[in-house]
Amino acid sequence: MSAASNFADRLAEAVERKGSPLCVGLDPMPARLPEELRDAEPVEAVERFCRGIVDAVADTAAAVKLQSAFFEALGSRGVAVFERVCDHAHAAGLLVVADVKRGDIATTAEAYAAAFLERRGEESALADVMTVSPYMGGDSVEPFLRVCRERGRGIFCLVKTSNPGSGDVQDLPLADGRPLWHHVAGLVDRWGADLVGTAGLSSVGAVVGATHAGVVEAARRLLPRAVLLILGVGAQGAQPEEVAPAFADHPAGGLVSISRPILYAHEVRGGDWREAAAAEAARFAAELRAVAPGVT
Amino acid sequence: MSAASNFADRLAEAVERKGSPLCVGLDPMPARLPEELRDAEPVEAVERFCRGIVDAVADTAAAVKLQSAFFEALGSRGVAVFERVCDHAHAAGLLVVADVKRGDIATTAEAYAAAFLERRGEESALADVMTVSPYMGGDSVEPFLRVCRERGRGIFCLVKTSNPGSGDVQDLPLADGRPLWHHVAGLVDRWGADLVGTAGLSSVGAVVGATHAGVVEAARRLLPRAVLLILGVGAQGAQPEEVAPAFADHPAGGLVSISRPILYAHEVRGGDWREAAAAEAARFAAELRAVAPGVT
Repeated sequence: MSAASNFADRLAEAVERKGSPLCVGLDPMPARLPEELRDAEPVEAVERFCRGIVDAVADTAAAVKLQSAFFEALGSRGVAVFERVCDHAHAAGLLVVADVKRGDIATTAEAYAAAFLERRGEESALADVMTVSPYMGGDSVEPFLRVCRERGRGIFCLVKTSNPGSGDVQDLPLADGRPLWHHVAGLVDRWGADLVGTAGLSSVGAVVGATHAGVVEAARRLLPRAVLLILGVGAQGAQPEEVAPAFADHPAGGLVSISRPILYAHEVRGGDWREAAAAEAARFAAELRAVAPGVT
Repeated sequence: MSAASNFADRLAEAVERKGSPLCVGLDPMPARLPEELRDAEPVEAVERFCRGIVDAVADTAAAVKLQSAFFEALGSRGVAVFERVCDHAHAAGLLVVADVKRGDIATTAEAYAAAFLERRGEESALADVMTVSPYMGGDSVEPFLRVCRERGRGIFCLVKTSNPGSGDVQDLPLADGRPLWHHVAGLVDRWGADLVGTAGLSSVGAVVGATHAGVVEAARRLLPRAVLLILGVGAQGAQPEEVAPAFADHPAGGLVSISRPILYAHEVRGGDWREAAAAEAARFAAELRAVAPGVT
């Protein structure tokens, strides 16, 4: 496999090229769209909004993360927008994260892997990497790993999520004293062992919330080769400096996803929504650059 | 809330009316479609197949379960087929289970609940009930519960799944000695406490695999009010008699989903694929009737 075809290597290259581990999350909420888009038909408005944001952040961000739920809430026409926004982001030079949190038994997981990570006829795959859930165990993740190996794709597995209720299951103390998520981190480390690229990072990463003190640092220790997809910075209250431990060994050791403060920057900054998003993305990129010393 | 608007009551009524707790799973795999559909364009072939199966089993089954992955693998046009098959199944008098295994932080989970459980303009909701994942905890499930309460919908939460690897996470021993899934069962029981209908069953059910010995019985004990969505009978090797404990207290205490042996019965039985599916569904319905004594 060539270096370029390993997802983690492509991510490391993108972070270096853009000079920032910023991922902009696309959570298009119809009620919060800019004034000028409110008169358009909702599905059309969401498409115009997402395309505008992609263009606005393309020079600053390494990746965009599409939150599937907001597109699915618009029905199959919304899913068609999801597809076109993925293609538009790729054309704009961005890596694409499909935030879909899928997981199912083997033959079904194969269909999910095909949906998001495999070529569609003449078109490339929708996404470079997708989020998956670990609850159903190793054989439910294996079909995704196979596509990662064969096609240079990646997954981010849920490990310790950013929401307050994440502890209900993820923090449960196991018989050996560790919280459950530490065990899941170990599984993720093992699943990604043969997907480490030349940059030293694995294409099997972990979703980690920066909203809980010490979690990013512990995840870095438990998952030395994983890219951490870090959520919770911005709208959920975590500060950029809390993500610093992710970058201890590699400038692409973390991918920090920030959604609503960038998307809806016009609500605070006023003016043109694209310019507001671009400015806010640049501000976050600079803050992240300051805490990820290897990024230049 | 009227009795009819509680999902579990509507399910109990459907099981009584059809005389069977059978749910037919729609897992349309293009490579296994009947010969006569192979020449059609794939998305169109899947739609014709699913509509044909719905019509073939409408008199026998209480519900159909659409496995979203197989529709999503066909892109947004496949998702449009998912929507039309849901509507067709409702029109045929079947309850609809959206097997999507979604789960996300609160505002995102709201969008998923809207996608599957809420009205779409003039159309009714896609599904009566959807599968959700518990990994992200109580606040990720609450938006679904709210829709269940307000609109008489239901969820089936993953508890102990049918795949061999389910033990990797679900069987982990907790500090108190119980396997993780027993704790998750307790959470599900609590989440469903205020959604119990007049039939004594909750609209918050649990996904349980009959492929593991003793699991259905343990789930029944841990979740006395939950409808158990039982998987693994048929293609995965579990026998109908293993599901009997689900029905100890109520004829609708279990909903047994059988997919591929019914869908692809023509591969074994030969002849018309609709007739083969109808015959195989009738055979399973009779077997289930024999182990669910309350069902007449």
